[in-house]
Amino acid sequence: MTKKPVKIVTIGGGSSYTPELVEGFIKRYDELPVKELWLVDIEEGQEKLEIVGNLAKRMVEKAGLPMKIFLTLDREKALPNADFVTTQFRVGLLDARIKDERIPLSHGLIGQETNGLGGMFKGLRTIPVILDIVKDIKKYCPDAWLINFTNPSGMVTEAVLKYTDHTKVVGLCNVPIGMQMSLALMLDVPPEKLRLQIAGLNHHFFATDVFLEGKSVMPEVLEKYIAFSNEYAIKERMAMMKASRENIGKEGHKAEESLSKTPMLMPFSEAFLRGIQAVPCGYMMYYYHTKEMLEMEVEEYKQGNVRAEVVKRTEAELFELYKDEHLNIKPPQLEKRGGAHYSDAACNLIASIYTDKGDIQYVNCKNNGAVTGIDNNSGVEIAAVITADGPKPMAIGTLPPTIRGTIQNIKAFETLVCEAAVTGDKNIAITALNNNPLVPSDTMAAEIFEEMLEAHKRHLPNFFK
Amino acid sequence: MTKKPVKIVTIGGGSSYTPELVEGFIKRYDELPVKELWLVDIEEGQEKLEIVGNLAKRMVEKAGLPMKIFLTLDREKALPNADFVTTQFRVGLLDARIKDERIPLSHGLIGQETNGLGGMFKGLRTIPVILDIVKDIKKYCPDAWLINFTNPSGMVTEAVLKYTDHTKVVGLCNVPIGMQMSLALMLDVPPEKLRLQIAGLNHHFFATDVFLEGKSVMPEVLEKYIAFSNEYAIKERMAMMKASRENIGKEGHKAEESLSKTPMLMPFSEAFLRGIQAVPCGYMMYYYHTKEMLEMEVEEYKQGNVRAEVVKRTEAELFELYKDEHLNIKPPQLEKRGGAHYSDAACNLIASIYTDKGDIQYVNCKNNGAVTGIDNNSGVEIAAVITADGPKPMAIGTLPPTIRGTIQNIKAFETLVCEAAVTGDKNIAITALNNNPLVPSDTMAAEIFEEMLEAHKRHLPNFFK
Amino acid sequence: MTKKPVKIVTIGGGSSYTPELVEGFIKRYDELPVKELWLVDIEEGQEKLEIVGNLAKRMVEKAGLPMKIFLTLDREKALPNADFVTTQFRVGLLDARIKDERIPLSHGLIGQETNGLGGMFKGLRTIPVILDIVKDIKKYCPDAWLINFTNPSGMVTEAVLKYTDHTKVVGLCNVPIGMQMSLALMLDVPPEKLRLQIAGLNHHFFATDVFLEGKSVMPEVLEKYIAFSNEYAIKERMAMMKASRENIGKEGHKAEESLSKTPMLMPFSEAFLRGIQAVPCGYMMYYYHTKEMLEMEVEEYKQGNVRAEVVKRTEAELFELYKDEHLNIKPPQLEKRGGAHYSDAACNLIASIYTDKGDIQYVNCKNNGAVTGIDNNSGVEIAAVITADGPKPMAIGTLPPTIRGTIQNIKAFETLVCEAAVTGDKNIAITALNNNPLVPSDTMAAEIFEEMLEAHKRHLPNFFK
Amino acid sequence: MTKKPVKIVTIGGGSSYTPELVEGFIKRYDELPVKELWLVDIEEGQEKLEIVGNLAKRMVEKAGLPMKIFLTLDREKALPNADFVTTQFRVGLLDARIKDERIPLSHGLIGQETNGLGGMFKGLRTIPVILDIVKDIKKYCPDAWLINFTNPSGMVTEAVLKYTDHTKVVGLCNVPIGMQMSLALMLDVPPEKLRLQIAGLNHHFFATDVFLEGKSVMPEVLEKYIAFSNEYAIKERMAMMKASRENIGKEGHKAEESLSKTPMLMPFSEAFLRGIQAVPCGYMMYYYHTKEMLEMEVEEYKQGNVRAEVVKRTEAELFELYKDEHLNIKPPQLEKRGGAHYSDAACNLIASIYTDKGDIQYVNCKNNGAVTGIDNNSGVEIAAVITADGPKPMAIGTLPPTIRGTIQNIKAFETLVCEAAVTGDKNIAITALNNNPLVPSDTMAAEIFEEMLEAHKRHLPNFFK
Ligand SMILES: [Mn+2]
Ligand SMILES: [Mn+2]
Ligand SMILES: [Mn+2]
Ligand SMILES: [Mn+2]
Repeated sequence: MTKKPVKIVTIGGGSSYTPELVEGFIKRYDELPVKELWLVDIEEGQEKLEIVGNLAKRMVEKAGLPMKIFLTLDREKALPNADFVTTQFRVGLLDARIKDERIPLSHGLIGQETNGLGGMFKGLRTIPVILDIVKDIKKYCPDAWLINFTNPSGMVTEAVLKYTDHTKVVGLCNVPIGMQMSLALMLDVPPEKLRLQIAGLNHHFFATDVFLEGKSVMPEVLEKYIAFSNEYAIKERMAMMKASRENIGKEGHKAEESLSKTPMLMPFSEAFLRGIQAVPCGYMMYYYHTKEMLEMEVEEYKQGNVRAEVVKRTEAELFELYKDEHLNIKPPQLEKRGGAHYSDAACNLIASIYTDKGDIQYVNCKNNGAVTGIDNNSGVEIAAVITADGPKPMAIGTLPPTIRGTIQNIKAFETLVCEAAVTGDKNIAITALNNNPLVPSDTMAAEIFEEMLEAHKRHLPNFFK
Repeated sequence: MTKKPVKIVTIGGGSSYTPELVEGFIKRYDELPVKELWLVDIEEGQEKLEIVGNLAKRMVEKAGLPMKIFLTLDREKALPNADFVTTQFRVGLLDARIKDERIPLSHGLIGQETNGLGGMFKGLRTIPVILDIVKDIKKYCPDAWLINFTNPSGMVTEAVLKYTDHTKVVGLCNVPIGMQMSLALMLDVPPEKLRLQIAGLNHHFFATDVFLEGKSVMPEVLEKYIAFSNEYAIKERMAMMKASRENIGKEGHKAEESLSKTPMLMPFSEAFLRGIQAVPCGYMMYYYHTKEMLEMEVEEYKQGNVRAEVVKRTEAELFELYKDEHLNIKPPQLEKRGGAHYSDAACNLIASIYTDKGDIQYVNCKNNGAVTGIDNNSGVEIAAVITADGPKPMAIGTLPPTIRGTIQNIKAFETLVCEAAVTGDKNIAITALNNNPLVPSDTMAAEIFEEMLEAHKRHLPNFFK
Repeated sequence: MTKKPVKIVTIGGGSSYTPELVEGFIKRYDELPVKELWLVDIEEGQEKLEIVGNLAKRMVEKAGLPMKIFLTLDREKALPNADFVTTQFRVGLLDARIKDERIPLSHGLIGQETNGLGGMFKGLRTIPVILDIVKDIKKYCPDAWLINFTNPSGMVTEAVLKYTDHTKVVGLCNVPIGMQMSLALMLDVPPEKLRLQIAGLNHHFFATDVFLEGKSVMPEVLEKYIAFSNEYAIKERMAMMKASRENIGKEGHKAEESLSKTPMLMPFSEAFLRGIQAVPCGYMMYYYHTKEMLEMEVEEYKQGNVRAEVVKRTEAELFELYKDEHLNIKPPQLEKRGGAHYSDAACNLIASIYTDKGDIQYVNCKNNGAVTGIDNNSGVEIAAVITADGPKPMAIGTLPPTIRGTIQNIKAFETLVCEAAVTGDKNIAITALNNNPLVPSDTMAAEIFEEMLEAHKRHLPNFFK
Repeated sequence: MTKKPVKIVTIGGGSSYTPELVEGFIKRYDELPVKELWLVDIEEGQEKLEIVGNLAKRMVEKAGLPMKIFLTLDREKALPNADFVTTQFRVGLLDARIKDERIPLSHGLIGQETNGLGGMFKGLRTIPVILDIVKDIKKYCPDAWLINFTNPSGMVTEAVLKYTDHTKVVGLCNVPIGMQMSLALMLDVPPEKLRLQIAGLNHHFFATDVFLEGKSVMPEVLEKYIAFSNEYAIKERMAMMKASRENIGKEGHKAEESLSKTPMLMPFSEAFLRGIQAVPCGYMMYYYHTKEMLEMEVEEYKQGNVRAEVVKRTEAELFELYKDEHLNIKPPQLEKRGGAHYSDAACNLIASIYTDKGDIQYVNCKNNGAVTGIDNNSGVEIAAVITADGPKPMAIGTLPPTIRGTIQNIKAFETLVCEAAVTGDKNIAITALNNNPLVPSDTMAAEIFEEMLEAHKRHLPNFFK
């Protein structure tokens, strides 16, 4: 049976990430013959869409492939007959993210894209838009898979699972594959020989087992991880990652060198690592080094260097590069943007669904019993077999109490944010915040919520009905 | 069938609470004919045991009842044929509690008897002793019920359920009955007409429904609770409760007056209360007003007035009173000690088991499926029917996400503390701390743990094997 | 707070059982002041309604109570302001039950009112009518409790729980209280001193523990039950019960004598009783003595004496008695009808809800986690505390594998019957039959289903849409 | 990383199946270099071991491979350093199976190798021997995988999971792969393009979805299955399969022809198939055509042709063939023995574990949450990803009520048989029988149990301690 060629629609096509995606499709053309790639954006993003779209066209032309690139502001025109719809937009653009980060910090609380106050507001803005897109998918291309990269990716997947009947949805993130790469470096083995058992939620998971050619090497991983952790104080490590991301002078160079050996890993206490017998994902530093992360973020806040501000500058530079009519490949600077392995994760997933490959990938999908104690119809981030019928999570069973509590806690937070996003219920939103360990005061939660609600008013119509 | 008269053994008999218990038995003699009350204590507590024991004897004599009081340091002599064994001891006495509170505060973290670092260390000291007592119960009086008041009462119950096969165990606390009393005052109805649906854990529960003569009055309760909450800022309220407890001058008097109408209730934001549709127990202020509670405790720390220090002074005064050979009733000053309704909760439970009464009380017992998502063999704090076969919890089913996460989180914390207490595994202990929302840094958790371990060395033999 | 007097509406008021119910209300008038009792029936039942209604009026008059009896064919007129709606009707009257029993037997299969083919068809006829009644309750008296005695009582409760949002529903049956009475006779203790732990479904439960004044006497119960079982072969026992029910000559008398000591208990093998460590309810003979029960029923079938035929004759006699204008009490012959303790079960339940009594009764209600493995929103038959907020089942936890499989199996059967009743889906109905252990052949299931569908056509409109 | 060559130990090496296994290893030598194959048997089986062993040696020699065959009666000598231990023995040989089948039939009940009375006794004989083997594995080759083909394969796996701490165990059966082959024939597609979603237990599962190149083709499968079912009456189909198995004259030939298109499928009613929306495994005919299966078996019983008797004759013929010193390949007659695909299933599993292949196979393994409602540590038959760390079942979630009840029922039966096998508790064994739908009478269960216990006395030491 020969397969029909593929039509892909990318909502938020004007994103700076798009060249990564295009590169991914070009590299995999033999396996995944993308015939049409529709880049869709909103009016506000038209300029970027054109810059990125033209670069995409040049890239395809250089590759000499019969892949057609379409640019449009009209989603309804793009969707019919789509096989895959990818979503990577940012409601309110980076300015909204700047508010997500700066307002909480102005009150001394962590503002971060997927955790705490910032993450919640990103969810509140994004979920209604995604649910609208799903409505259009049901109408124009009901057999299409929705592949979501928009953060908070876990909550977005949860919302689609709980509030629509479109079951063809997968949420993606590059953190698990990044951890696999990092652990491969640490063990000095090729990354494709590793496989992780992932348990938890988007940006809130642990690798509870690590297999090298299928055999558990967890004891070795733990010893190396502990040795690495003992080498670094958390603050030093954070400074190093920051320096590397921003590549500042000599400091940056030195950081790059060190990080080239243990990228994306954060140190934790030896006792904790021995206690959990697992590798925490990098975002766990927000939960287990809350104090230190807050101190660092306050510093960035004071300097006008919160992550969104840095990204905004990087993006401006990227778009300058993209404009260059001689550029016909993905510019290497894009990797600094923070989306390492993003293209691989996305294109591998799409290719495996398309070809019914049956390989194992890390995705956000319906739990279906794989993790005991999480509702069957809730989303989890997990290792799953990717088939043409979608991801099939491999059952993990009961989580040990060492990691069960925090996962349940954040799952409750996510569930409440989804409910608040859909209903516009302020009380549920503030209750969600009170369920988040990064928010230490009900009084503050209620106050800051009102301030952020006002600041994001334009993008939160459900709260102003 | 006439019932045989009752033999009770109280471990920690020299406690300042004992006169409450004795008063409770005297008041209920017709229903619960206590023939023998054995007060057991350790050598270090011998003096107090004698003071309290003599007061107890005078109380019984005044009541003119054939109840015999025995004082002993020899547990094995006391236990044979006991019907109920109550436990109310404090390993390391109040000096240990002072350390539990002051050491964390010296690092800027909440130190509190059942939450966070202090609570964990109390658990680590207490659980092995309780398990030893259970061993003796199995040997000398295997049909006896173990009624535990020693904090952390939830963890202690959990440890007995998980690490012994003695199923006759109930953990008690006066907070739920205190909430019932407070809500009755708020609604202006007799407390016995109210019944709460309690969901959660010891010192970590919510009333998810309130029944007046069996009909839900939750909407009215919530409105009144919100009105009350809106009246108070959390800090003001905390100051008021503190003043009342210490009864300082005019301030104290004014506080008493206000508190006489809404005792034991703490204000939360209107949004949160509407979000959870439940009444949080007072200890929830540690979790939802962490910032404010910490500020208050730091203040007390600086003044040498952490709760344990205050209690130590109060106790010294109480024992002075107890020594008075003319005193033959429970002195009214005891109520200030913090154990209001303690006697009622304890004696009611014992009486209902003894008489198979079938009334509903709030206890810590085996979940048995009553709360979905908590292991069947774990403990919960819940409304249960009290029979001669013990408490039978009434099924609550699925917890809403508004309160599920935090309960799961603290249950994981409790489970880990029990494991650490039994095994002496430092890594599990520090992992437990990292699971507690009051501990904001893995690094600090590991450091402070070592300091406290050293400070409590004498009482933590499992960690120094 | 004085309570307002009670209005009760009885759907199927013309039933021969009604005098039991009226007697129950009269006896409890002080506790449960029934001011209005509306007996509602359909046109077909008008004559019986009047006979029974007039008897009811004479009974109330004799008792000298201000209880008003209303007779009507108009449900909508009866319902407004009702506090309790009881349902005890029989769709298609006894002639339908005769078909339920005779058609399966004509094919060599058990036809029985709540099990197998007969039970399923009774469910299919009854559930849509009940759901209609619930619609009217929501409209005319949304605060009323629906107390259902109509068989299959478990399925009816399940259907209301699953297919309506009226949560105030309780299903009743006299089998559990009958077991309590029988075991009390067996132990020679007053029945009110016993309490059973009931696990399972309507007509499909086990007593997994038996408490005498709150202490488990299960070992003694088992030994006595085994001794009793060893005394009887199952066939002899069945003959005895049949003789007693029909009171045939000397045989009947002898049976009565024996049964007066162990009524309603059926013998099982010693090994099985020791294996399950539980007391099976009498209906379990259909599942564990399928062969013997079938042989007996085939015999009855040949003689024109299937249960429905016997009952029809008994009822005709009863109505003759009821017509007697001098009769102003419940005639003692009614007890033979098979509804022993029916009045007690019903009136006790209503009284305990009305008075928020908090006693323990056996009911069909929402599981809510009480039995692990049964969906939280499914119905179970269980010991529950009866409050003004309805029954609160006491958590039982995990069922042992000795009884878990059959309960899960019949629960699946019930669930499928409810679905078939609501949707009129023939395939689901036949699948339900294939799930029932009394139906040994898919081929026969499909064939007999068609025959019965045709026979009951008039009362199964959902299957002929 | 090059892998070390493989050592395999086959317990019951003298089985007539062994040539299949040897053929499988020979065919896969490149992928799975078996260096040593130890065939182990007991004294009673020495002659057969030598016949089969010599054939195996000739087969290897012909293939020209450096695979060494060892024959021994001494398990302890064979096990050290084994990588895989396969078990395919028959406690009590075919004579025991003849009793398993004939004794129940002499009482009019189905006697069958994995269902009902016969299956239970096979379990009771086999499980203790398997647990002994596991003890030896723990001692001599703790890293070896136990691959079990001995029936009842599901119970054997369950027993190892529940009563040992050896987690490296997989139970195998050829029925799921046989269903895949049959459905491929039915759909006229290559079998390797199909993948089944299997839900249930060994010999008691349903295919709840069928994927062709990863896309569900369940609707088409159902229509074809229904068309096939409508073509055959169950009795005719059974006769056909029997004739084919025994290849009797013209009848057999005709059967072969028909069966070549739909092998191993049994007809069910259209309504049932539409109701369950699943494909029942062939053994389900015992549960859904109990009546018809019993009639056929009674016929076979009368003719001295119960399955075990037929197999015994076939085996005698096979061993005659095996003795032929010129035979150096697997004789084609072996396929009639009933083990089609057996070699493939076994060797594929071993190869995929050895190479960490990550393909999907149907196995019996720990549920781990994959099927909601079955205990996490119980066994299920399921589609799993095969890795070097063993099978990882893909989560299925909640079973629909159409198939949930019977699976739960048989799981309870299996659990009880395991318990009885380990403890020798007669009461549990008889309770197990009462839980089996093929046993219609507690009285008969108890009686026949005693007769079979006596007949198998020699092989049931746990019951005669
Ligand atoms: Mn991400
Ligand atoms: Mn307390
Ligand atoms: Mn009934
Ligand atoms: Mn098999």
